[in-house]
Amino acid sequence: MTAMGFDSPGGPDVFRAEELPVPTPGEGEVLIRVAYAGVNRPDVIQRMGHYPPPPGASPIPGLEIAGEVVAQGTSVTPDAIGQNVCALVTGGGYAEYCIAKFSHCLPVPANVSLAEAAALPETLFTVWHNVFQRGWACDGETLLVHGGTSGIGTMAIKLAKLFELTVIVTCGSDEKCAAAVKIGADHAVNYRNTDFVEEVKRITGGKGVQLVLDMVSGDYVPRNLACLAEDGRHVTIAVLGGMTAELNMAQIMVRRLTLTGSTLRARPDAFKDLLCDEIFRTVWPSVEDGTLRPEMDRSFPLAEVGAAHTRMEAGDHIGKIVLKVGG
Amino acid sequence: MTAMGFDSPGGPDVFRAEELPVPTPGEGEVLIRVAYAGVNRPDVIQRMGHYPPPPGASPIPGLEIAGEVVAQGTSVTPDAIGQNVCALVTGGGYAEYCIAKFSHCLPVPANVSLAEAAALPETLFTVWHNVFQRGWACDGETLLVHGGTSGIGTMAIKLAKLFELTVIVTCGSDEKCAAAVKIGADHAVNYRNTDFVEEVKRITGGKGVQLVLDMVSGDYVPRNLACLAEDGRHVTIAVLGGMTAELNMAQIMVRRLTLTGSTLRARPDAFKDLLCDEIFRTVWPSVEDGTLRPEMDRSFPLAEVGAAHTRMEAGDHIGKIVLKVGG
Repeated sequence: MTAMGFDSPGGPDVFRAEELPVPTPGEGEVLIRVAYAGVNRPDVIQRMGHYPPPPGASPIPGLEIAGEVVAQGTSVTPDAIGQNVCALVTGGGYAEYCIAKFSHCLPVPANVSLAEAAALPETLFTVWHNVFQRGWACDGETLLVHGGTSGIGTMAIKLAKLFELTVIVTCGSDEKCAAAVKIGADHAVNYRNTDFVEEVKRITGGKGVQLVLDMVSGDYVPRNLACLAEDGRHVTIAVLGGMTAELNMAQIMVRRLTLTGSTLRARPDAFKDLLCDEIFRTVWPSVEDGTLRPEMDRSFPLAEVGAAHTRMEAGDHIGKIVLKVGG
Repeated sequence: MTAMGFDSPGGPDVFRAEELPVPTPGEGEVLIRVAYAGVNRPDVIQRMGHYPPPPGASPIPGLEIAGEVVAQGTSVTPDAIGQNVCALVTGGGYAEYCIAKFSHCLPVPANVSLAEAAALPETLFTVWHNVFQRGWACDGETLLVHGGTSGIGTMAIKLAKLFELTVIVTCGSDEKCAAAVKIGADHAVNYRNTDFVEEVKRITGGKGVQLVLDMVSGDYVPRNLACLAEDGRHVTIAVLGGMTAELNMAQIMVRRLTLTGSTLRARPDAFKDLLCDEIFRTVWPSVEDGTLRPEMDRSFPLAEVGAAHTRMEAGDHIGKIVLKVGG
């Protein structure tokens, strides 16, 4: 089979086609003939050499796929062969065939394209865990998300609206702000010409938001905390703006703020089993009835993965970038 | 009635006896003839002028008392008069009579002295909320507490052992370490001659602790986080070492740490009602059967409250300091 890998880290041009043996599914695993693979920010960071695959994972990038199950290992019930599924994987998605735990697969409904299905797992699992499980979001609360038109940002808007939160996003241009509002954000703040702390205070009548989903970190953290209402939660899912933050611990104590965060890829299979099961029960019905769709940016052929990464790094995309592999 | 207050903030010598009218209990309140009042670190900070009473609270210090109910307002059932109770109050404890919400009172069992009873509410409510409710402590986990011989520290040791945690404390001398171990700590680290981060790693076999109860803050915070195991929690209840902390947000994300904190005095009555009720159901049986006793340092007459504060500020006390008022 053909996969897109790289010999040493670098720019988007380091990708080259590799011919690899089709992998064999082990216990609880299925082999998926990949129709589409989602492109995510961690893939870019991996390509740059800053996010090595966890032990046991494929060195080929790609954390989510959709396609047909063509083989299955032991302990996979019911019979999975022939099903169209999308899956969260620990790597190897940029390839014609990919192994997934069957317990990390979700069935693709007839009314959802395989391109859309491939764009769901990574952001859906990440947003669900961090906003609802780790961040305790409840209907009626207000969520602040940076990068409102990113894959994570657009999924956060849609999931939060589905569960009746108010959503404020920040974006880097008026065009992106308009796109975020069209996708469903209640408010979009252009951080290049507006102080988001002041704007959040204005929007919330001085009260602040209950939850911040943050991928910037660094000097955004004290500003995010200033946006939080009493008992507010701050969840870190990336540190794109720097790791170090200077915090006022008295503010955390007196206002009873909570800071936490997580990464998805390194979590144990058992955790992902439970997360996938909860998403199937709580979110998947809205995918099946057409209420929840990923925001799609563009599709690139697998061979043009370098161009897909270039687009993501330029930051001009709105929603998800996917790679067309087979399908 | 006589109360010990002060005209302007300052050292322990600012206290002076004041003659005040005996207060009248309102709805849901009782009037307690104070036998003993507990002395707490927030009283010292209030006397220094850095912790003003919340709106509606007495300007007289004192956050916990024990004594006999001598009058009751409307809506107090059952008939409370004549009961010996201890109570969490928002101020006014350094006085011959003090008002308390009856829902913030706990009955004093026959085998508990009123001096001991007065030493329970503030640290019991604080430790219970921050270690078990906010910090999610579970049996089998390990807790790190600084100031192991303080009122909070000794209560944290006793409550944590009651609920089958392993407890590591830090103290400022070998004598205090020995006292902490005698009180029940599994390990006590003299922070003046031992790096507690290295020692915690050694004790836990490199794994770290699940929970830190911190009252130091400042540059202790990154050191505390280095003591935490994956999924560990850090709860701030005071910032005696400074408010500002420089944190590595990538560590919080990758190791899924949680930082939070709280103060007790400013919380609404309804919160304290629930907390008191939970403590009555879960902890009070161990007070009634003699398993849980506060660690008592010394008792001072109310008129010598300045000497009591001097002792607390010197840091030579082990356990709780109380004031003998009536009783």
